[in-house]
Amino acid sequence: VPLADSPFLRACRCQPVEQVPVWFMRQAGRSLPEYRRLRGTASILEAVRDPELAAEITLQPVRRYGVDAAILFSDIVVPVAAIGVGLEIVPGRGPVVAEPFGSPADLERLRPLQPELDTPYVIETVRRLVAELDVPLIGFAGAPFTVASYLVEGGPSKNFARTKSLMHGDPATWFSLMDALAGIALASLRSQVEAGASAVQLFDSWAGALSRRDYERFALPASRTVLEGLAELGVPRIHFGVGTGELLDLMGAAGADVVGVDWRVPLTSARARVGPGRALQGNLDPAICLAGFDVAASEARRVLAEGGTTGYVFNLGHGVLPETDPDVLARLVELVHAETALGRPAAAGEARP
Amino acid sequence: VPLADSPFLRACRCQPVEQVPVWFMRQAGRSLPEYRRLRGTASILEAVRDPELAAEITLQPVRRYGVDAAILFSDIVVPVAAIGVGLEIVPGRGPVVAEPFGSPADLERLRPLQPELDTPYVIETVRRLVAELDVPLIGFAGAPFTVASYLVEGGPSKNFARTKSLMHGDPATWFSLMDALAGIALASLRSQVEAGASAVQLFDSWAGALSRRDYERFALPASRTVLEGLAELGVPRIHFGVGTGELLDLMGAAGADVVGVDWRVPLTSARARVGPGRALQGNLDPAICLAGFDVAASEARRVLAEGGTTGYVFNLGHGVLPETDPDVLARLVELVHAETALGRPAAAGEARP
Repeated sequence: VPLADSPFLRACRCQPVEQVPVWFMRQAGRSLPEYRRLRGTASILEAVRDPELAAEITLQPVRRYGVDAAILFSDIVVPVAAIGVGLEIVPGRGPVVAEPFGSPADLERLRPLQPELDTPYVIETVRRLVAELDVPLIGFAGAPFTVASYLVEGGPSKNFARTKSLMHGDPATWFSLMDALAGIALASLRSQVEAGASAVQLFDSWAGALSRRDYERFALPASRTVLEGLAELGVPRIHFGVGTGELLDLMGAAGADVVGVDWRVPLTSARARVGPGRALQGNLDPAICLAGFDVAASEARRVLAEGGTTGYVFNLGHGVLPETDPDVLARLVELVHAETALGRPAAAGEARP
Repeated sequence: VPLADSPFLRACRCQPVEQVPVWFMRQAGRSLPEYRRLRGTASILEAVRDPELAAEITLQPVRRYGVDAAILFSDIVVPVAAIGVGLEIVPGRGPVVAEPFGSPADLERLRPLQPELDTPYVIETVRRLVAELDVPLIGFAGAPFTVASYLVEGGPSKNFARTKSLMHGDPATWFSLMDALAGIALASLRSQVEAGASAVQLFDSWAGALSRRDYERFALPASRTVLEGLAELGVPRIHFGVGTGELLDLMGAAGADVVGVDWRVPLTSARARVGPGRALQGNLDPAICLAGFDVAASEARRVLAEGGTTGYVFNLGHGVLPETDPDVLARLVELVHAETALGRPAAAGEARP
């Protein structure tokens, strides 16, 4: 099967599939013992900068789980770190920016990303992966709002007070920051696709902290620049955030082919909000996986029933939690494939492509 | 004006008001310099246990802002701390439980609350306040789910993984925990009302982390026990959580007279979701207050237009942030009163009681 006809890419395009494809956000990483062994004492940024290591980490969950897509091992702050914004990824906490952004002068700390010069290791990792993988590789970037929130807050935030204060109090600086970050995300994603990535996911993880009104004014335009800037490349564009129930239609309209949905909104409701012509991805609560396979299986069956079989990619509603038992995920992949395989007798009332 | 005819209580009952009432969640506390001076080096739990201090802290924002209601200075973990669950409130972090709950045996660490014996200082603080206040006093408690999340996680949580794992993996233990916490919340609230509180707010601050399905099964029944257990006392019951856009109708139906709404859902939408017969409270984004008064005023006017004038209490969508300038809040109170006073010429299309 050529990659373009893989279940994952067909589902992203709302084309009929023989079984529902599945992958997991953060499928590579701390929940896997082989990841912890392989990464050893290297920091996440060190691992990302080592194409051999990053490629191997990306491949681990594909081998173990038999998922329908790989996602590049990287982090949303990699491009801004590469152009010299001083930051580190602190274990158990997340990205921490040494000198948070706050004034117009800080804009000078951002320059356009030149992926061949600034992040050659990302390109090299993608090249190695596409040579080896028989499933599509998903490239990714952080959406301008979410990356900006780290730069402005100086790290993960509960209430995004500094970020919201900046956008409302000094919109000119805010929009300049958004422009710069949109250019960086777009350049990074283009370079990943040009190196062979078959799809991209734009992570606006914290967009759900915004009201619909603020999202529309302060976050969406820059995300649209990124997503529409990728249109000519012809790869599916996934757009995801948590707590975005009020924003799903806007996140689709920003230029997404696939809208990621967390566990708060049933996929049937999400389908109605997003409208026809776009696929959905999600939305099993990752915390459910900690309650053991039987509970996870029962919830997964409900999610599958709500997701339908066309224009749907099974996933969690957010990333795999570090304490997840990998066997639960492995069995979930089997379950999704078995329960949705075309040969299986359809349940009463079930829609089929 | 008798207290029962105060704008706040009338608004809670969806009765016509002469102007929209306003108070702020966490109006007492760290944003006030007089609070920081008064509390000095006392811990929050020490301050709560000192009726003179707790009453004075409760009064400070009433004097400074001219808000239409006072809210008891306390914390949602006060009752469980009083019956011997070892915990402390760590500055900048929140409640931290020394030995998190996880097994059926932990249920023995909870016993029924006897407010006169266990939290006499709360009752005494309420009595002092009602003798002094000329606006209604709001009592409060944490909803069983939110209090349970602190007990099970051991502190504030990002993903509530242990809590969700317990509810799904060991529902019997979970429901026993909910029963115990519902009894504790109900006993605490009854004692506050019997001592003179004119209204209560049940804080299910983190209920928005749950899917609608999980909320309905695992959280709502215990909250209903609390809210319906208060019905005979005849005081308005406010029910609040953040990120609860998908749950607003359920949170109303659980037995609330007033549903608190965060900034993510416009009040017009919230009104449609909650339905007639219940008031709304909210929903200015507290982070907006950090962008200065002009921005906050503009957003407050929009919130007022969406909230309407009947069955509506102006508030923030979550608690006052510690870095908030008190002058912004003082001017917001003036604005809400001035813009909604009956004498003012009504704007085009504006509904009036």
